[in-house]
Amino acid sequence: MSIITQIIIGDELLNGKIDDLNLKYLANFILDKPIKLAQAIFVRDEQDDIESALQKSIEMSDVTLITGGLGPTKDDLTKEILCKFFNSKLVEHDKIKSDLLDKYEMLGKNWDLSLNDYHLFPADATYVKNPEGLAPGILFSTGYNGNKRLIFACPGVPREFQKMLTQEIYPCIEKELTLTNNEQEYYHIRTYGIPEEEIFNIRYPKLWEELSKYSEVSSLPTLTGVDISLRLTKDDQLESKKSNIKKIIDSIGLKDHVWHIGAQSLAQVIVDEASQKNLTIAFSESCTGGLSASKITDIAGSSKVFTGSIVAYDNSVKTGILGVKKETIDAHGAVSEECAYEMAFGVKEKLNVDIAISWTGIAGPTGATKNKPVGTVGIGISSHLGTKSKIYNFKGDRIKLKERFSNYGLILLLKEIRSL
Amino acid sequence: MSIITQIIIGDELLNGKIDDLNLKYLANFILDKPIKLAQAIFVRDEQDDIESALQKSIEMSDVTLITGGLGPTKDDLTKEILCKFFNSKLVEHDKIKSDLLDKYEMLGKNWDLSLNDYHLFPADATYVKNPEGLAPGILFSTGYNGNKRLIFACPGVPREFQKMLTQEIYPCIEKELTLTNNEQEYYHIRTYGIPEEEIFNIRYPKLWEELSKYSEVSSLPTLTGVDISLRLTKDDQLESKKSNIKKIIDSIGLKDHVWHIGAQSLAQVIVDEASQKNLTIAFSESCTGGLSASKITDIAGSSKVFTGSIVAYDNSVKTGILGVKKETIDAHGAVSEECAYEMAFGVKEKLNVDIAISWTGIAGPTGATKNKPVGTVGIGISSHLGTKSKIYNFKGDRIKLKERFSNYGLILLLKEIRSL
Repeated sequence: MSIITQIIIGDELLNGKIDDLNLKYLANFILDKPIKLAQAIFVRDEQDDIESALQKSIEMSDVTLITGGLGPTKDDLTKEILCKFFNSKLVEHDKIKSDLLDKYEMLGKNWDLSLNDYHLFPADATYVKNPEGLAPGILFSTGYNGNKRLIFACPGVPREFQKMLTQEIYPCIEKELTLTNNEQEYYHIRTYGIPEEEIFNIRYPKLWEELSKYSEVSSLPTLTGVDISLRLTKDDQLESKKSNIKKIIDSIGLKDHVWHIGAQSLAQVIVDEASQKNLTIAFSESCTGGLSASKITDIAGSSKVFTGSIVAYDNSVKTGILGVKKETIDAHGAVSEECAYEMAFGVKEKLNVDIAISWTGIAGPTGATKNKPVGTVGIGISSHLGTKSKIYNFKGDRIKLKERFSNYGLILLLKEIRSL
Repeated sequence: MSIITQIIIGDELLNGKIDDLNLKYLANFILDKPIKLAQAIFVRDEQDDIESALQKSIEMSDVTLITGGLGPTKDDLTKEILCKFFNSKLVEHDKIKSDLLDKYEMLGKNWDLSLNDYHLFPADATYVKNPEGLAPGILFSTGYNGNKRLIFACPGVPREFQKMLTQEIYPCIEKELTLTNNEQEYYHIRTYGIPEEEIFNIRYPKLWEELSKYSEVSSLPTLTGVDISLRLTKDDQLESKKSNIKKIIDSIGLKDHVWHIGAQSLAQVIVDEASQKNLTIAFSESCTGGLSASKITDIAGSSKVFTGSIVAYDNSVKTGILGVKKETIDAHGAVSEECAYEMAFGVKEKLNVDIAISWTGIAGPTGATKNKPVGTVGIGISSHLGTKSKIYNFKGDRIKLKERFSNYGLILLLKEIRSL
């Protein structure tokens, strides 16, 4: 299988200032393609480090994909470094220049030399179009031990990178390299509420071995729960392998802990299944502070099922809008089964939806009491089947707890959708 | 300056299944320390790749920090690979065993051999305690060209990694290596509403050069705007350098585009400044779908200033709870200055706060009309100074647009806080 290495350039990434988004995008994009992302290397905007990463990548990979360092400012060095590495030099590129003039005209501006030097391009490289932005992409082609090596460089701006990858770079890889047809598919068994070692080492000690008959197995604890993943070759046997794996899961108690088999996000599964059943959803969120609503509204098409969320951070919103009784909060506290119950019921009635979920908890670092440590959350659920609520306990810092609270409530929502 | 390289192990990271959080944490943690994160390498759970990354890291770095691959399942190979690399072998470790028994007892469980092999440890390594979890950390010490090299391995679970780094690993690095005292501080000038090339190449062509007199400069477009960062050495001149840089910014029109000088997040700055002025805040969110509320509630102490948010995804919530007039939506649409105005005013009154912000827009991919493309957003703001609203246009996919909408509204909120 052909190998790709990504080199991600930028001090800001190694200074923790920003998160790289392109690695994940690339990884997901090529997951079902006959080329494997073997490695990703984050380096600073420094000549030696970039050259050394590049050298190593060319030795081990058919394709090297460099992102970052192509902008208009003086710390953008990728083009110059590639020139030096490949013994090339920058020359004016007519086609790039005319593309630039067109793009600036579309923006209602004039391009001139004071803006950037995008029109200067390595004499020995191929121009890779940037459909979403201004800085042109670069392709160098070279050999290593008799094998062809492709080295692409493109801007790190995710919108630009993504379009270049799908429209320009991958089609070029397919044309230039002979990709062996060895497509694979990931099969993910997504569980909740059961720890990794309890699954594999206590309850189902033969499970790993049994699954391994069908493919390489991996197991990963996430903020929803443990995900067990299998990498299946796309061949004639694919469907029968999937069905056998499903039978294994269905035959053991683990199936009660599986919320989804597949690669969709929890929010996507909720939106899909609620849409199919024409159900409407609303939230009342205290400790999750809008996170649950934001996850659902990340999904295109969520407006079909999601009516809204009352983020009732202050108790005045719980009583004033959701109709939680002041006496309930006085008697039991805002973090209680009773309050979660009234929040869920209240928002269901107020927003007139089929299912409502509520969260009220302590994400910390302060707010804990003797009986209610940081990580305590009351989750309520209300539908025509009735209203119920319960206290749960999780661990983590503030950000993680918001995630864990939210995910657990969303899993309860999914179960409710399935029961309606 | 001493150099650190991080090696991040895990197929799931290169398959795009999860995001690594430890790189960012490490980067931020060591930012002001006299050691520099030079490189981060993501590799698969494969012996050859891990060994090759390790070899390269030992050649170039004083410290190698490996995360991942230490869990209880069969795809966790780090311990075995390190043993092979360093010609060591796994033996029973009494102290680890007794720590394990204690930890399991605290969890109300019994540890035994069927659970994991955490008690087996490389004979030539030092035990690094894991205060937050079960899998022990590992330290190998070796030499390269006469220099000491430290190789740490610890679990990839962020909570465990973070505590090990701060409590065990960094103190150990300080003890084992002679760190030169060359502390640095980042000085970030955070702008909005002006593109990178307009700052440096059109409006202030000498700015880069002027700033460069004080330190290395870098510029980074983010989802809030362009951040200009300087890396200042912490010496006697630090304060006068900062003050000179501030004078440069204050003397040019760029200062109107600066929302903050420092490293805080936008939400943190809002919570801090609103707290200082005892102001309360509420949101009404349509297109941002709870994202703005979630950002504010990520900040510890936000409950002092943040009352809540009405996520009015469906128009029925806009009219039913926020008091937006049905005629307003019929006449102008939900994505309009008029609707944003009524949403902001409505939530300010309903939740009885000092300042309210509203968002109503089109995040796509569907929902665009002839005059309102994807990326159109109405943002309203209401305080005792009055209520105003305006239509803005941004670019990006659904997730990016939610971010950009949210950030721009939060900057308007910050300006309003400053004017009160």
